[in-house]
Amino acid sequence: MAATPQRTSGSVARDDYLEQIYHLMEQKGYARAVDISRNLGISQSSVTNMLQKLDAEGLLNYERYRGITLTEQGTEIAKAIIARHEMLTRFLRLFGIAEETIYADVEGMEHHVSRATLEAIRALTQHLETNPATLKEIVSQMSLPES
Amino acid sequence: MAATPQRTSGSVARDDYLEQIYHLMEQKGYARAVDISRNLGISQSSVTNMLQKLDAEGLLNYERYRGITLTEQGTEIAKAIIARHEMLTRFLRLFGIAEETIYADVEGMEHHVSRATLEAIRALTQHLETNPATLKEIVSQMSLPES
Ligand SMILES: [Mn+2]
Ligand SMILES: [Mn+2]
Repeated sequence: MAATPQRTSGSVARDDYLEQIYHLMEQKGYARAVDISRNLGISQSSVTNMLQKLDAEGLLNYERYRGITLTEQGTEIAKAIIARHEMLTRFLRLFGIAEETIYADVEGMEHHVSRATLEAIRALTQHLETNPATLKEIVSQMSLPES
Repeated sequence: MAATPQRTSGSVARDDYLEQIYHLMEQKGYARAVDISRNLGISQSSVTNMLQKLDAEGLLNYERYRGITLTEQGTEIAKAIIARHEMLTRFLRLFGIAEETIYADVEGMEHHVSRATLEAIRALTQHLETNPATLKEIVSQMSLPES
């Protein structure tokens, strides 16, 4: 798929790394390659390669045997990725979809959602959250043998 | 991303092949490897490999130098993929998003949308299509410097 200027996303891999590192930093102030490797299910040597690349791009500080931290620019991108993840999750939760299904959908969809689509989903979610009767009517029209 | 039983999608690549072959068959009754290669931007040797794999899975009939046709099972899967593509397109068109942005988003998102999410989007789209005042209110809440 060709990237367009409207994409909120860089590459899928880059997004997933920045997202993971941000969450690890929240938990303990820094991230370790071994934790990223485990959380993303990617080999340590691949993780090392990508960390060097993201370091060269100025998105994080990576020195072997030391904790990884995001730069200001890396933090900004990570926050946008996480905000997008949370927006899509909030949207899908309106419809009584199983949490694990929502998580799998969001992890996939979030890399392919333009700013315009995200803004439509935000306005839609806000409307449905403040108009429960409308939401209830929509949900009642869903035919689902299972979630 | 681990596949779940709720996914509407097989692999991204498989979906894209079946979708393309279906469209080519609609145009002229059969598909050729060279057209698939051009439309998907994939090398002919990779296309040949995948066609052999899909043939072995019973999804299409592939003999070198002859046209490719989908089996009944392949046709059924392709139709589901195309219906999902069309549903997502119909949904995003409600919000005045640029056509090329919609196309890029749908081509990415369609591989990551569970049956439950697709059904929610279907019910939502139907509601907004039949309640233009609600849609208009939502669109008026969107803040978009550009589409
Ligand atoms: Mn995510
Ligand atoms: Mn498609």
